[in-house]
Amino acid sequence: MSVQSSSIQKLAIDTIRTLSMDGVQAANSGHPGTPMALAPVAFQLWTENLSYNPQEPLWPNRDRFVLSCGHASMLIYSLIHVSGIKAIDKAGKGTSEPSLKIEDLKSFRQLNSPCAGHPEYGYAAGIETTTGPLGQGVANAVGMAIASKHLGAKYNKPGFELFDYDVYALCGDGDVMEGVACEAASIAGHMRLSNLCWIYDDNGITIEGHTDLAFTEDVPMRFRGLGWNTVVVEDANDLVALQAAFAEFKATKDKPTLIVVRSVIGYGSPNKANTHGAHGAPLGDEEIKLTKAAYGWPVDAKFLVPPEVPAYFAKTMGSKGSAANAEWNKKFADYKAKFPKEAAEVESIIERKLPAGWDAALKPFPADPKGLATRVSSGKVLNMLSPNYPALMGGAADLAPSTMTLIDAEKDFSPANYAGRNMHFGIREHGMAAALNGMSLSGLRPYGATFFVFTDYLRPSLRLSSIMHQPVLYVMTHDSIGLGEDGPTHQPVEHLAACRAIPGVYVFRPGDANEVIHCYIAAIKMDNHPSVMVLSRQNVPTLDRTNLGAASGAEKGGYVLSDCEGTPQVILMATGTEVPIIMDAAKKLSADGVKVRVVSMPCMELFEDQDPSYRESVLPKAVKARVACEAGIRLCWDKYIGLEGHFVGMSSFGASAPAPKLYEHFKITPDQVVAHAKLAIQG
Amino acid sequence: MSVQSSSIQKLAIDTIRTLSMDGVQAANSGHPGTPMALAPVAFQLWTENLSYNPQEPLWPNRDRFVLSCGHASMLIYSLIHVSGIKAIDKAGKGTSEPSLKIEDLKSFRQLNSPCAGHPEYGYAAGIETTTGPLGQGVANAVGMAIASKHLGAKYNKPGFELFDYDVYALCGDGDVMEGVACEAASIAGHMRLSNLCWIYDDNGITIEGHTDLAFTEDVPMRFRGLGWNTVVVEDANDLVALQAAFAEFKATKDKPTLIVVRSVIGYGSPNKANTHGAHGAPLGDEEIKLTKAAYGWPVDAKFLVPPEVPAYFAKTMGSKGSAANAEWNKKFADYKAKFPKEAAEVESIIERKLPAGWDAALKPFPADPKGLATRVSSGKVLNMLSPNYPALMGGAADLAPSTMTLIDAEKDFSPANYAGRNMHFGIREHGMAAALNGMSLSGLRPYGATFFVFTDYLRPSLRLSSIMHQPVLYVMTHDSIGLGEDGPTHQPVEHLAACRAIPGVYVFRPGDANEVIHCYIAAIKMDNHPSVMVLSRQNVPTLDRTNLGAASGAEKGGYVLSDCEGTPQVILMATGTEVPIIMDAAKKLSADGVKVRVVSMPCMELFEDQDPSYRESVLPKAVKARVACEAGIRLCWDKYIGLEGHFVGMSSFGASAPAPKLYEHFKITPDQVVAHAKLAIQG
Repeated sequence: MSVQSSSIQKLAIDTIRTLSMDGVQAANSGHPGTPMALAPVAFQLWTENLSYNPQEPLWPNRDRFVLSCGHASMLIYSLIHVSGIKAIDKAGKGTSEPSLKIEDLKSFRQLNSPCAGHPEYGYAAGIETTTGPLGQGVANAVGMAIASKHLGAKYNKPGFELFDYDVYALCGDGDVMEGVACEAASIAGHMRLSNLCWIYDDNGITIEGHTDLAFTEDVPMRFRGLGWNTVVVEDANDLVALQAAFAEFKATKDKPTLIVVRSVIGYGSPNKANTHGAHGAPLGDEEIKLTKAAYGWPVDAKFLVPPEVPAYFAKTMGSKGSAANAEWNKKFADYKAKFPKEAAEVESIIERKLPAGWDAALKPFPADPKGLATRVSSGKVLNMLSPNYPALMGGAADLAPSTMTLIDAEKDFSPANYAGRNMHFGIREHGMAAALNGMSLSGLRPYGATFFVFTDYLRPSLRLSSIMHQPVLYVMTHDSIGLGEDGPTHQPVEHLAACRAIPGVYVFRPGDANEVIHCYIAAIKMDNHPSVMVLSRQNVPTLDRTNLGAASGAEKGGYVLSDCEGTPQVILMATGTEVPIIMDAAKKLSADGVKVRVVSMPCMELFEDQDPSYRESVLPKAVKARVACEAGIRLCWDKYIGLEGHFVGMSSFGASAPAPKLYEHFKITPDQVVAHAKLAIQG
Repeated sequence: MSVQSSSIQKLAIDTIRTLSMDGVQAANSGHPGTPMALAPVAFQLWTENLSYNPQEPLWPNRDRFVLSCGHASMLIYSLIHVSGIKAIDKAGKGTSEPSLKIEDLKSFRQLNSPCAGHPEYGYAAGIETTTGPLGQGVANAVGMAIASKHLGAKYNKPGFELFDYDVYALCGDGDVMEGVACEAASIAGHMRLSNLCWIYDDNGITIEGHTDLAFTEDVPMRFRGLGWNTVVVEDANDLVALQAAFAEFKATKDKPTLIVVRSVIGYGSPNKANTHGAHGAPLGDEEIKLTKAAYGWPVDAKFLVPPEVPAYFAKTMGSKGSAANAEWNKKFADYKAKFPKEAAEVESIIERKLPAGWDAALKPFPADPKGLATRVSSGKVLNMLSPNYPALMGGAADLAPSTMTLIDAEKDFSPANYAGRNMHFGIREHGMAAALNGMSLSGLRPYGATFFVFTDYLRPSLRLSSIMHQPVLYVMTHDSIGLGEDGPTHQPVEHLAACRAIPGVYVFRPGDANEVIHCYIAAIKMDNHPSVMVLSRQNVPTLDRTNLGAASGAEKGGYVLSDCEGTPQVILMATGTEVPIIMDAAKKLSADGVKVRVVSMPCMELFEDQDPSYRESVLPKAVKARVACEAGIRLCWDKYIGLEGHFVGMSSFGASAPAPKLYEHFKITPDQVVAHAKLAIQG
């Protein structure tokens, strides 16, 4: 059955196509060609395959749809509109209002429109993740599929299949070319995520022209090598072939499926179809008329939605989805009665609430002059949190033994045991981070670990964690030249500054084991920002707090760790492993009769969140003599030390040598801090 | 012929193995297992296949060897030592001194040792690129192979094969898992780089344990999908099979080759072979003795190099390499006589010198109130530079039409025409940047382009450009909310700060077309730092400079663009598209009788390089009232505006709307600058 043969199908598909064309034209900006090409694919997926209740867009066991080729955003906006997805209230429940009104589509790419240039998570119900940066959406989908498998393995009981949802991602050449997608695909293949389906729009056209210019690989063979099932649909308009491909996906129980769909970009446009002219610019009023004529569409109609089309979506996806949702609700009510403990966990995950007593097992570390590396205390804290916080799960990019992120009491997450909570992401930092975003969007509280210097490898996903307000936890160890012999390629220098630079990212660098506890408390309590835990390879003393500020001060981002009588002559500031250095310096200065305050500043972002009077109490404006010490670059400290400020830290890449030699070599020592403090006091 | 059957071969291989074990043990840190496993592979490659003259390590047509698994650094240090590679002088010529003495190997991982934890380019002759961050080395090798093909296609003449070198990269599981490697492999497959050979050490072991934990894909099938020839060698100790694989590589003329070598990590160690215990820690004195005994090696000898071993390397690689080099020298002398123009170009490339007259075609842009987007003037400048600077070549990650990086007079670099200078990297930013590093290391002056926000995708390679002092040019357009409708995922906010944070990276953000010229002049003249050109999507006026500071001031990083009589009451500072905003503000302030100076600051790093008196002349300490304006975050400006400074810019992610609406919405306007200036003057 070709699309042309069935009037309601063709009507619906052409509605999606013309809405997309009209939206881009009204904005005078955007990407019409891909929605025009993929409308039949989306139609067939949504009406016949996607288990989704438009009345309750957040129904927990809904299938997920990710538009990884986010530039084709008018496609998802059109789908949300014609399928009648409802807006949600603050509790996440469906309302009687549409998620996207036709006026919203008309205001595509305008200020405050929910129809942004690329789909933005949180702007409208039906958008499961923010997409646009290529490769991210498909990799998010891997995380969503992981979550489905994990929640199912953990909470399903015989007769109670609470979680068995599928995840579909629509993607283009760019997604398939990006390395992050290859990493994520390899993870998915290894984990045998049979609930994951990527649909690759193979249209042969990119911005520079034909894909032959740069992209001639055999994509299905590559994916088979990655452990995927692959199916090719030769014509995006062939609904029968599409349905067969979806059926093959559902029948494949041991691996993910890639459906390659050959399509024509700008399908139907007499002059722009199959050219890159249809990719990233409006078709133009004339060409739109010609295209509508080619579809048999009223040429002057704009944003036309024939009433049969929403009715058809309601009759198909709508009725199946609401029935499935109702059945699930009934099942879950029974489940609650039979398995109250598990049901409570499921609810805390669905509602993204911290379970009561999540912090009950946290115990302070005793004072210890030898101390622990903060990566070690972090590992202990993760192990203390894990039993009381079931949503918490994660792992490392092949660095679990170094980043101390293994939960001793838990098993591996693997194809043989999806209930495991220790994940092995392989040496794929970027794929890991993008999957973490997908897991977080699915209600889990995921963490991922690697060396701090390799935040560079996952930065695009970290940025998206923040854009989407996802509380993903990045556990980043080996945080400075203090890692020693591995040398400059492995030693972070600019990374504290570079992470702090991203809006909404909270960067924690605790100074001892007890600050580690309170940094974790602060990070876990935050439900709308990612956190980066920056942790040392080398030991730091666990401070005896008897005469010092309490470690709970870390929850305010910065606090007075030790103080003098009266107004200080100089304030010393540091984070992490440099806190002991300024403590030593303070002792020397005090011995010389200098009045000195020591401020520990484990999280600048949290400190900036405090009210001005608290900040003034820690860093009084009147005290101009200030020295900051951090084994990274100066950049973030200028705002605390001012134009004449003193800084003890790095201004170049590191070197390969044992850590103590490097601290001497780069002059990050108590004596240097003392010398700078004296200069600062002189003014 | 197995290695055991030939005494000199076994002796040489065991020498490499024991040197590596001893080096790691002496450092008490490092990775012994991979050198022990791969010693036969390296031996066979270096003695029988690599065309390399140890007396002249920089001979231009040498084959390149890249140790992409950089943690196995003792392998390359051992090879450099036993093969007798000579140190080079400042002109790059071989000296009589060894590149690495045995004492250097003994000081592995110590301060100032050339034998750093990971191989560092420039520390010792024989190290072709800095490796360690996984996936980078193999991708650098792609760039080196591109350079070989390009230089050959452009400069070889019948009978004068000046450039036909091969590039070998030794890599491990991590390299193969990283997305950057997949991008680079896809580029190499597409470009049919038959001179490229990756040797993949398939040892089944990673840091977390067996690769089965996270890595079960069919690597050869993936690579065949990527357009590669693949060969499997079942035993790393089988020199005959290895030689057959190298022969197959050399015989394959239409695609790159992946040689998969099954090896045993920590080969020969009775208790640690084939375990991750052999990966990243010394074997221990006892285990080393047991291993040496297993090799039939004197158990108490340390750093033992039997004299037969260097003699064998000299007889094989040494004699073939010096003969090939001598023949090449003779050929090049004849070439110079016959093709003086081409020879001069070749010499400027080999010696990395700017050719005379490289800037001859640069012409200033006439004043124009409508102006040009800086991406447009950048495109014109690239086209003015290209004819007189043959080493300059590059392209975009599928964004040439948007980044304006196509050279009109040049053809595409493609398998059909390696002489072309317009490169199509596909949507593979990271693979592009890593390849650019390899091209730069080969004497070319490469540029790569994408949207500025996607510097996040290539950041690990940008960092390595700087660590290696490679003058790679990154052309980054769509540099702020000024790109408009694409919205927050595409709008850089923190990226200026994040790029400026990397030591040694010069970030240029020119304010008009003539600043673009002078930023390019400054960037091109720098031969030991990467430059990032940050360019606008939207138009900026081309300033009428009659009563303004000359645009050549941009070559000092920051300069006074317009000034008042006497001491200014307030200094306004900006970069790029915000320069016109502060110019407008200055007009308004002057009209109100305020004495105002306008400073354009297109490159902070260059400004910091100027002597203090120049900097004081631009930003006099006495003038405390300062306002900075930049459509990014404040971070980098604190050092110029101080604790009480005023900043007009961004503090959050952007939004989707036409650019002028966004500038209003985020309050980056002349009126805001005026208001802040007045507050600043009040103090």
